[in-house]
Amino acid sequence: MNQKMQWLRNQLLSLNLQGMIVTNPVNIRYLTNIQAEGILLVTRKENIFITDGRYIEDVHNTLTLFDEIVVYDVRGLTKDDYENFFMFCENVGFEEDYVTYSKYKEYIRKYKINNLVETENMIEKQRMIKDEEEIGYIRKACQITDECFEYISNYIKPGMTEKQIAKEINEYFYKNSDGLAFETIVASGENSSKPHAIPTDRQIQKDDVILIDMGCRVNGYCSDMSRTILFGQVPQYVKQIYDLVLKNQEQVLKEVKENSNTKLIAKMVDNDFRLNNYDLIHALGHGVGLDIHEDPVLSFNSEHILKENMIVTDEPGIYIAGQFGVRIEDTIRITKDGCEVLTNSPK
Amino acid sequence: MNQKMQWLRNQLLSLNLQGMIVTNPVNIRYLTNIQAEGILLVTRKENIFITDGRYIEDVHNTLTLFDEIVVYDVRGLTKDDYENFFMFCENVGFEEDYVTYSKYKEYIRKYKINNLVETENMIEKQRMIKDEEEIGYIRKACQITDECFEYISNYIKPGMTEKQIAKEINEYFYKNSDGLAFETIVASGENSSKPHAIPTDRQIQKDDVILIDMGCRVNGYCSDMSRTILFGQVPQYVKQIYDLVLKNQEQVLKEVKENSNTKLIAKMVDNDFRLNNYDLIHALGHGVGLDIHEDPVLSFNSEHILKENMIVTDEPGIYIAGQFGVRIEDTIRITKDGCEVLTNSPK
Repeated sequence: MNQKMQWLRNQLLSLNLQGMIVTNPVNIRYLTNIQAEGILLVTRKENIFITDGRYIEDVHNTLTLFDEIVVYDVRGLTKDDYENFFMFCENVGFEEDYVTYSKYKEYIRKYKINNLVETENMIEKQRMIKDEEEIGYIRKACQITDECFEYISNYIKPGMTEKQIAKEINEYFYKNSDGLAFETIVASGENSSKPHAIPTDRQIQKDDVILIDMGCRVNGYCSDMSRTILFGQVPQYVKQIYDLVLKNQEQVLKEVKENSNTKLIAKMVDNDFRLNNYDLIHALGHGVGLDIHEDPVLSFNSEHILKENMIVTDEPGIYIAGQFGVRIEDTIRITKDGCEVLTNSPK
Repeated sequence: MNQKMQWLRNQLLSLNLQGMIVTNPVNIRYLTNIQAEGILLVTRKENIFITDGRYIEDVHNTLTLFDEIVVYDVRGLTKDDYENFFMFCENVGFEEDYVTYSKYKEYIRKYKINNLVETENMIEKQRMIKDEEEIGYIRKACQITDECFEYISNYIKPGMTEKQIAKEINEYFYKNSDGLAFETIVASGENSSKPHAIPTDRQIQKDDVILIDMGCRVNGYCSDMSRTILFGQVPQYVKQIYDLVLKNQEQVLKEVKENSNTKLIAKMVDNDFRLNNYDLIHALGHGVGLDIHEDPVLSFNSEHILKENMIVTDEPGIYIAGQFGVRIEDTIRITKDGCEVLTNSPK
């Protein structure tokens, strides 16, 4: 059995759970490498993956005997099979943040479970700390992102549309990585005031603000980087806001390390923005891994203590409605006494 | 207030619900046209959309006074605000197939709701029947899909990779529609035996089976079409299976109409496959709309009665593990006495 499944079994033991139903596909991939629709049951004796005809062949190709996972086709399972899986289990864990209310009721009925127990995102929490292999994938994804940014910086010319630039970034990622980590944002001029803008047919002007937010995947693991390009001559107050965002973004890079409190870091940036009459309207950052947004969130609404080998973003932004926006973002790895910046494109 | 929101309010009245929490973003888009993260509250007096700073500007641009929707920034809401929304409501509906178990518990606590009631996918059920505007979007998406297929049929040459062909399809859709309805499948040779294949670097051979499953979006509404191309000379047994799939696919087109029972239609195909020692390993079809897969499912595991202006796929397939697969799929609109086939590429 692999290390991650072994970790899960030890967790279940320590929590007095005799079984668990894992349904979040990202958690299933994390634990087993399986990328298929289905459900992972950890029972007293076995690890079971239930899937359907569309995926059986693929799953068999992914797994080896070493994985110790039994694969079932959902169409071959009877009412009795389901009731037997967790027989003699007093407590069975489930993912309350992922399972819908109707599935929750269905599980109790279908598996005849005495006590279906919330597991408080224990797998997501474990996923926050990356091992060497995971760090390697993210480092590679960040490197490709830097290379893409260098390429695109030379590519952008006045008259091009946001869509055209986004398409060029996407093609670069499709060619050089395993695909996009999320829908690429290219937002120029007044469009950049929307933190979540979708590329439009707006053409880049001779003097313009261009906000690019992009990331790719390597073996499922994501990178995430934003840069705001001040193209040509922009008004002085745009530069002032750029400098304010950059100052705070770099301050965070200087201050984070193992045991930093995420709430305090986010508050530090928000306070400085407020001193200048602006607001931090979204989180300062988020974890990055198999999901583009995962724990921990770096925000003054929640509190996490950073640990070594967490990989998170640092992405303060200021947005002036209808005018422009500035966001600068790096993906970083937390270390014992600071951080390793994984995206290194010029700011 | 628009017709769809008015419909929802009437539904709530008839179900003795004094309010509802709508959380499925596709349902929110369907009802309000809003495309943003957030939550729609239908209270006794008001329609409320709660979102965050990233979307406020966009949401305001989408809505007009006629919509009668009040927009709140989540950061401005207090504990009291939440508790007031559903004050004096005895029963409040929620989407049990969409809301997680932990959100369910949070809603009860946060909104102080007496009775949070399952609504049995009533919005999804309403979405099954399309109005003229929705049909127009899907018809347009299907037309673009046909044009793309004609283009790609002439484009494919031996030596090209599956990825290359998929990329060409994707670019066509990005250029001519609002984007992909789902990840394009181009699966050739033995790869076509996986119903859910991801395009690889495998090159098209002189004599080959190529399965293409593709669809685009127009104003959010999807098209869905599969064709299996027998390229050059393929063995006789491949042709036999192709003919068996095609015969059944066309039989369905002939037989469906308003009041058809989906279980019986799927059983008809499965029976014919079984007579020939094959299996229908996935559903025969599914509804198409703002979601690429929506109700009704056409499968022998579930039972729906088709109604006029439902839009569904007809997509039987046979897969020989490790060798090849054949799937032929059209998007169709159910009519009073038959169906209108919306995708018309040659088979």
